[in-house]
Amino acid sequence: MKKNILMGQSGGPTAAINATLSGVLKGCREFFPDGICYGARNGVKGILNENLIPLNDRISTEADFYALETTPAAALGSCRMKLPKDLSDPIYDTIFSVFEKYEIGAFFYIGGNDSMDTVEKLSRKAAELGNDIRIIGVPKTIDNDLPFTDHTPGFGSAAKFVATTVQEIACDCAVYSDPSVTIVEIMGRDAGWLTAAAGIPRLYGEDCADLIYLPEVDFYSDRFLEDIRRKFKEKTTLVVAVSEGIHSPDGTLYGADPNGKKDVFGHTMLSGAAQRLSQLVKEELRCKARVIELNVPQRCAAHCLSAADISESVALGRTAVKTAKEGNTGLMITYVRKSTDPYVLDFGSVPVKDTANKTKYVPVEQILPDGSDVTDDLLRELAPLIEGEVEIPRRNGLPIHFKIK
Amino acid sequence: MKKNILMGQSGGPTAAINATLSGVLKGCREFFPDGICYGARNGVKGILNENLIPLNDRISTEADFYALETTPAAALGSCRMKLPKDLSDPIYDTIFSVFEKYEIGAFFYIGGNDSMDTVEKLSRKAAELGNDIRIIGVPKTIDNDLPFTDHTPGFGSAAKFVATTVQEIACDCAVYSDPSVTIVEIMGRDAGWLTAAAGIPRLYGEDCADLIYLPEVDFYSDRFLEDIRRKFKEKTTLVVAVSEGIHSPDGTLYGADPNGKKDVFGHTMLSGAAQRLSQLVKEELRCKARVIELNVPQRCAAHCLSAADISESVALGRTAVKTAKEGNTGLMITYVRKSTDPYVLDFGSVPVKDTANKTKYVPVEQILPDGSDVTDDLLRELAPLIEGEVEIPRRNGLPIHFKIK
Repeated sequence: MKKNILMGQSGGPTAAINATLSGVLKGCREFFPDGICYGARNGVKGILNENLIPLNDRISTEADFYALETTPAAALGSCRMKLPKDLSDPIYDTIFSVFEKYEIGAFFYIGGNDSMDTVEKLSRKAAELGNDIRIIGVPKTIDNDLPFTDHTPGFGSAAKFVATTVQEIACDCAVYSDPSVTIVEIMGRDAGWLTAAAGIPRLYGEDCADLIYLPEVDFYSDRFLEDIRRKFKEKTTLVVAVSEGIHSPDGTLYGADPNGKKDVFGHTMLSGAAQRLSQLVKEELRCKARVIELNVPQRCAAHCLSAADISESVALGRTAVKTAKEGNTGLMITYVRKSTDPYVLDFGSVPVKDTANKTKYVPVEQILPDGSDVTDDLLRELAPLIEGEVEIPRRNGLPIHFKIK
Repeated sequence: MKKNILMGQSGGPTAAINATLSGVLKGCREFFPDGICYGARNGVKGILNENLIPLNDRISTEADFYALETTPAAALGSCRMKLPKDLSDPIYDTIFSVFEKYEIGAFFYIGGNDSMDTVEKLSRKAAELGNDIRIIGVPKTIDNDLPFTDHTPGFGSAAKFVATTVQEIACDCAVYSDPSVTIVEIMGRDAGWLTAAAGIPRLYGEDCADLIYLPEVDFYSDRFLEDIRRKFKEKTTLVVAVSEGIHSPDGTLYGADPNGKKDVFGHTMLSGAAQRLSQLVKEELRCKARVIELNVPQRCAAHCLSAADISESVALGRTAVKTAKEGNTGLMITYVRKSTDPYVLDFGSVPVKDTANKTKYVPVEQILPDGSDVTDDLLRELAPLIEGEVEIPRRNGLPIHFKIK
């Protein structure tokens, strides 16, 4: 194989995608010590624009690696780009000519579904060309909805932020003696893993979400109002965790604007699931209701990292390089859970062609039959992923974020 | 004076109001070791309902005090209640009969403007009655808008959360190469202190808000669009910090629904300042825009406490008790800054009658003449208030919140 290594990041950022980048770099120092490690700026776009940066000197000290691992988002920049289906498209010639020019022997792509699709197409094209480049996908997504891996890098830190923040919100809400409903909207259009995390604090007797609604099952507003009335018999201030993706039985997103308004780009405007629920509570129950959307901090709150997530993400990056060193290509590296109590994790891989464009949902058996909560079994399965704190580098009370210059 | 002590919490919760409660309790152990310390549940409401809890045994170990200091919101519960102007109203007889029954020699009320109003009325009533009870107000508010005190307990932790989160959001936004505007809405209806905190990271060369709009000056949408166009010449992804309270020159809140819709309670519905700005950017600049409301976590994110804020809040509570011990009443305890570099803080007091219903605004000289940012001088003044981290008690990765049972 050629001597140099290329790596890139793609898709929505997470708080752990840089930890995986650090792991890939550490793996390269271990398994390919003689090659230049290039980083592609903005994923595949950086390959197409020949915007490749040698990283060996830019990230070299222990302090560099640690700062990189605790900086959110994607230090190399990201893109949202899907390669054409037709492998004879000239874009592939451009990419492979860049691989040739920079003598790239292995390419590691850290990303979600679209990135795995890119890995699949590029490794198929490489086979067609008889090019022995090794192309490995390394997963990430806060949504935890990739199949074949026990969970995804970035999910643990996002889940820790959600669980911590919902616990704090529940603490805040409880100070008043008047009835109120606080509706917390959580990311995850298709899968409810992150929303489910809002229940973890109850495993330890702490306050958290009283009701949890996932997108895996249909949502009925009348049942929701019944759930609220029932919970009000037990306590005065309620916290509801709701996935942005809850939908009516006919499949319409509950948060879509009921009048179907579109913005200037032609996208259907979302008033938001939580906004609509809050209106419902005010109108039908005449009760104080408020909305909290956890929004982008779910994927970038590096001040609330899960140590489990970060150390696993680093190890996953290293495993990717080891897997390439062993002569493999066209694989996605995976987490394999050996045991939950005690929590033991191992690593594996799966042909990336098997993973493309598939979604892993919360199993319906882990959702209560009435759709208003998740099982404690599910929470116990998620709990180890948020354990441990990471002390981030700080200056004057604020994080020091690593930048690749 | 009578031997027992009463304390209560009132108004919107903060992440530091329990630290002050802890300080008051510690002060009582030091200065009034023989009295019973009662906590009033839900502020003045707890006095009226005779819902007073002896705290001496409930909060006694070092671990109890530490857990209390790191738990957000109000451990005794809160209320929003203003006492009648007329001191001959029978409600005052009820309150003073409870003071008599429980042999209360001093009452400490931790809260914002309404609570200081309560302290003022009760101390005036006490004087009328010839009752020697000592009544002391201890301030709190994340808004930092109380006069006569250098800053307010709770502001430092809220400002640290805002600065940290906006820095992380800026890091997240920067990953894509397409132009975008992210508008972060920050609490503070009348005063922009908390919104200004979104600029602190720039003192250390970190990414943060590129534009900052406070409610102290009029907001003009055409100038805002000009500011965005100007900043786009320097960089591709912009972050805007905006106070929820920005308003047009005629005084209308910019976030008020333009059609003046009201909810079922008759409150004018706010579509939100950031929502309106985002629409403006999409429509006028045809550019990607998104909205992040930091919302309630600003006041309860105890996983991101400022050590300066917490230790000062504890010391302020102790100072309140010392001040009462010295025979004073009708005072609000204050922070007095001796120096910013090095940062040195002392404590003082002011007659509570002078403070009632006054607001401390960000001085207009600290806002750039075009209204699009704040001065570095202001940021340097705020910076010491967010310094230092607090390691909160945790179990399995999640906070342990203290509850008074």
